[in-house]
Amino acid sequence: MCETIQIRDAKGHIGQKVRLRGWLRNKRSGKNIHFLIVRDGSGEMQCVAVGEVLSEEAMDLCDRMGIESSLDVCGELSADDRAPGGVEMQVSQVEALQLVEDYPIAKKEHGTEFLMANRHLWLRSSRQIAIMRVRDEVEKAWADFFYDHGFARVDTPIFTPNAVEGTTTLFDVDYHGDKAYLSQSGQLYNEATAAALGRVYCFGPTFRAEKSKTRRHLLEFWMLEAEAAFFDHEDNMRFQEELILDTMRAVLENCAEQLAILERDTSKLEMVRAPFPRMHYRDAVKLINEKMPGREGEFEYGSDFGAPEETFLGEQSEQPLFITNFPANTKAFYMKRDPGDPETVLGSDLLAPEGYGELIGGSQREDDLEAILARVREFKLPEEAFEWYFDLRRYGSVPHSGFGIGLERTLSWLCGVPHIRETIAFPRMLHHMYP
Amino acid sequence: MCETIQIRDAKGHIGQKVRLRGWLRNKRSGKNIHFLIVRDGSGEMQCVAVGEVLSEEAMDLCDRMGIESSLDVCGELSADDRAPGGVEMQVSQVEALQLVEDYPIAKKEHGTEFLMANRHLWLRSSRQIAIMRVRDEVEKAWADFFYDHGFARVDTPIFTPNAVEGTTTLFDVDYHGDKAYLSQSGQLYNEATAAALGRVYCFGPTFRAEKSKTRRHLLEFWMLEAEAAFFDHEDNMRFQEELILDTMRAVLENCAEQLAILERDTSKLEMVRAPFPRMHYRDAVKLINEKMPGREGEFEYGSDFGAPEETFLGEQSEQPLFITNFPANTKAFYMKRDPGDPETVLGSDLLAPEGYGELIGGSQREDDLEAILARVREFKLPEEAFEWYFDLRRYGSVPHSGFGIGLERTLSWLCGVPHIRETIAFPRMLHHMYP
Repeated sequence: MCETIQIRDAKGHIGQKVRLRGWLRNKRSGKNIHFLIVRDGSGEMQCVAVGEVLSEEAMDLCDRMGIESSLDVCGELSADDRAPGGVEMQVSQVEALQLVEDYPIAKKEHGTEFLMANRHLWLRSSRQIAIMRVRDEVEKAWADFFYDHGFARVDTPIFTPNAVEGTTTLFDVDYHGDKAYLSQSGQLYNEATAAALGRVYCFGPTFRAEKSKTRRHLLEFWMLEAEAAFFDHEDNMRFQEELILDTMRAVLENCAEQLAILERDTSKLEMVRAPFPRMHYRDAVKLINEKMPGREGEFEYGSDFGAPEETFLGEQSEQPLFITNFPANTKAFYMKRDPGDPETVLGSDLLAPEGYGELIGGSQREDDLEAILARVREFKLPEEAFEWYFDLRRYGSVPHSGFGIGLERTLSWLCGVPHIRETIAFPRMLHHMYP
Repeated sequence: MCETIQIRDAKGHIGQKVRLRGWLRNKRSGKNIHFLIVRDGSGEMQCVAVGEVLSEEAMDLCDRMGIESSLDVCGELSADDRAPGGVEMQVSQVEALQLVEDYPIAKKEHGTEFLMANRHLWLRSSRQIAIMRVRDEVEKAWADFFYDHGFARVDTPIFTPNAVEGTTTLFDVDYHGDKAYLSQSGQLYNEATAAALGRVYCFGPTFRAEKSKTRRHLLEFWMLEAEAAFFDHEDNMRFQEELILDTMRAVLENCAEQLAILERDTSKLEMVRAPFPRMHYRDAVKLINEKMPGREGEFEYGSDFGAPEETFLGEQSEQPLFITNFPANTKAFYMKRDPGDPETVLGSDLLAPEGYGELIGGSQREDDLEAILARVREFKLPEEAFEWYFDLRRYGSVPHSGFGIGLERTLSWLCGVPHIRETIAFPRMLHHMYP
């Protein structure tokens, strides 16, 4: 038997006879010839089956073989610039592992509902595979980036005993008689581990019981949150810029093929440069009230931005855009006030260009015990739930900052995919949890 | 102001005057001299403060500075083999960011209950920091290993619509009127994505509502699950061996300092070699019944092993040990039968040496539709819940295998930590969910 290879390694086997196992992506047939496009998860290859070489039985098999049949083929590889991937196989032997004749996802257009109900099969399409590959690449780039920058990954808990910021968007669980909430953020825990390990991050699923059905919301999504002792607000924003540039570099370098399949205009990504522009919240409000179609003069100072405002603001810039200095009462209790502008906080949201919305939210944290106690009281939060958190301000408090970046939103931007449901393998949305 | 550095980079700054920010780990004082052991998360350094150099005020500050005070020190670095880390600072300037005089975790021994209630502070101890560093290293090693072997990371959902293997150990959530269960395994989803991407893995938190209070159980733990199309049972076991060897290599190479703090006997790790020994379930039962103290003759053929049996079997071998060929009725419905021994399955558990218990469970999966339907009926599982899963056997079914490895159990073994609660930052156990 000849050597079994993966398609991604095919270029190293030109002129050799090899074996491939995979699925039939597509087929074109002519008189006494079949062009089988085979995919094996690592890539795609055109395998040419001709009657001069194969038995009548084998040619008949190729004839009957429908899309997504699983198969085992042997043949010699040759370089062919016209073939996708640049390599082609002259088939000398072919076997079907399973003949499929009625694959439910045909080439004709299907509605979203049908595709979502068949997500386990839809994931085999070129487009969905490309998005999953970019996702994998971004996750790897993040793991490398934080490791190389001396950040320790410390996983924070999903089950949390207290509802830190109100229960309306929290899922709860019966925890052997107690009530546990599914975490919406590992930040408070990151602050504890940053005091132990200096620079830390967590990365995991996050849950929001939101009723919204927008194209940017998932009930279960993945978020990376970083926290660094001795980072101030400036360090924090500079570090976010580095992260975004490095993520983009990894994707542009390693996912050119995937971005091509997704028809992503990469020139829009290639032009991104740091430092990113910054806009004071006050100026953002002014811009919305002056220029946002249909909203002129309507936006109230002191409100938080919704998806439409984030889209509008992001569209104003070819670069990712920091919105800074939100009014303190619009943002979480733990954000530190800007000493030079004390009605506002040392925090920022980073908006993607092209209207893809918020990628990152970050801030310097309040490190003074009295100040944070006052904020907890002002927000009417349950003080006793924060006793352990207050300890971080009692025992060796230091200046520190951090941020959270959403994986699916980052992918939505990098891949140019408008609906976030395609950026995760099995999206969980309002009234959608299957398969 | 002199350059601010991290302690891990100190060796590159010998002879220079630098600035450090961190926490006071420990202090020894003599006449007109203080040895301040400063930690900054990246390492520890001895900083020597002497009255000849510092003002009376600064010396007084050093005198009052208690453990876990946060501080900012400047001084010249010199090489000193006697100092931990090999570098020492001659302090020329010192400031307290926050003076702490009553840090609750003193050097005297505390009970587990106290330490667990103060986990957010306990994590600052050398031992806990060392374990978290090894954890970070293992997670990075896994990310690299799977990336380098062409496995795509595809995150599987936590919210799942059906209780696949009975509801007794499942947490459930009200999902806007429907019932969702928190996932205990991403495997079935991995099987779907493996048919799209060939080789895949998922890595995330996993939930078991178990009532057990053993030192090996957490209600929330992290598991990596891999799945590969065209891997048979042999490929699967060989790949697990590679993974274990690579994980061990990464930890031995990069965590020598941490393993020393943990007083781990690394010779036990260094002697691990592949291939790992294999033992048929039948022989394992025989061994238990012949040799296990207190259990001689008591273990019934056809039962699954509990923690005591796994400990006993693991202690019989200096190498990780595969137990193979479990009786089909003790294992999950999706495992493929061994054609040469059809009462048993093509599955294996990998037990750690030294009695640290099960690290990995893996198997070849049943890829025949009729066979898996029969198994689902035999186990009385809800057929309709598996409709999408059956599709994987209808449309291009291929031989495939996979496994799951527990992060905390792996760390327990590598670090030589008998109780799993120390291998995760914020352990969730029966009646323990704080902080």
